[in-house]
Amino acid sequence: MNERQQARRPGGRSARVGAQVHQAVTELIGERGYGNFTVGEVAARAGVADSSIYRRWGGLEKLLTDVALTRLDARSPMPDTGSLAGDLRTYAAQVAREITGPDGPAVLHLAVALSGSGEQGVRAGQELRAERTRQLQSVLDRARERGEDTADGLDAFEVLDHVLAPMYVRVLFGMVPLAPEYVDGLVDRLLLTHGMDQG
Amino acid sequence: MNERQQARRPGGRSARVGAQVHQAVTELIGERGYGNFTVGEVAARAGVADSSIYRRWGGLEKLLTDVALTRLDARSPMPDTGSLAGDLRTYAAQVAREITGPDGPAVLHLAVALSGSGEQGVRAGQELRAERTRQLQSVLDRARERGEDTADGLDAFEVLDHVLAPMYVRVLFGMVPLAPEYVDGLVDRLLLTHGMDQG
Repeated sequence: MNERQQARRPGGRSARVGAQVHQAVTELIGERGYGNFTVGEVAARAGVADSSIYRRWGGLEKLLTDVALTRLDARSPMPDTGSLAGDLRTYAAQVAREITGPDGPAVLHLAVALSGSGEQGVRAGQELRAERTRQLQSVLDRARERGEDTADGLDAFEVLDHVLAPMYVRVLFGMVPLAPEYVDGLVDRLLLTHGMDQG
Repeated sequence: MNERQQARRPGGRSARVGAQVHQAVTELIGERGYGNFTVGEVAARAGVADSSIYRRWGGLEKLLTDVALTRLDARSPMPDTGSLAGDLRTYAAQVAREITGPDGPAVLHLAVALSGSGEQGVRAGQELRAERTRQLQSVLDRARERGEDTADGLDAFEVLDHVLAPMYVRVLFGMVPLAPEYVDGLVDRLLLTHGMDQG
């Protein structure tokens, strides 16, 4: 999109309000934890009226779902380094940076909390998981197309179980930072299990 | 403990109130998710006065921490089957049953939520993790004492990362049930990585 299109695009103010409200939510989760603040407190911190939030999101749970989906969808595109090992190492390092970054633990806690609270949250969690699985599958498919045999035995759920899950659990339980050698080690171990060259 | 001892034991009423309050908290977390109920609602469901809860626990966060610690400490003792493979398979199956049982997902969500909210919750999470690590280490130590060589290369954190973490993340994101073959597969894979006989 060029600047002219952007300038013509309606909703500039709406986008700004949205960003302020999202930032306020992320800060409040980081400071107080999930469930320990109200719509009124979000509105005050974002500098908008309570009614703007209710009009746009309906309520706190829908707002939190929107923040979690937006933040977790905003991650960088999947790497394409030319080898499965390179793609997975780059991807794992990227996820590690995101979930240990300034708002990372708060967003991860939010995603987990939503998955445990009500149908809407469960659906949001399923969408995120489906999206993540699709991304990983595209990396594995590319490796197969290049003829990397060992990609055949590997599926996206193994990456979830043995690369993402250990990092998620460590961040959720405050076992941080995630050392780069630790993160590389998770990928190397996964590839080793599949008898693949790690070079 | 026989009935006479139980009758003589001081704190019988206090223990009963404690159990009722804990049960009420677990139910409310299961129904509404963490953060979506008040001390008054817990008291009403448990059939006790609000003041009893404030007197004993001080507030909602301390009560939630107490529930999480009690529930997660109450798990069965570590198995002692005579082989590392047997111990780990039995342990993994036991954890899978607990976290997918009637209150399992709620308690797991609670433990995660507490770890993300305030110093007290973080400390509670650290205590739980330390206790879990000690339990696993005792299983590994016994295997080494029996002369199971491959236990040398294995530490409690690997069991956390590659057996517990995948199950935790799947339950937290609603990817249930955990099939017995899946749970066994996590243990087999861990042992395989260490070149150990899986029989």
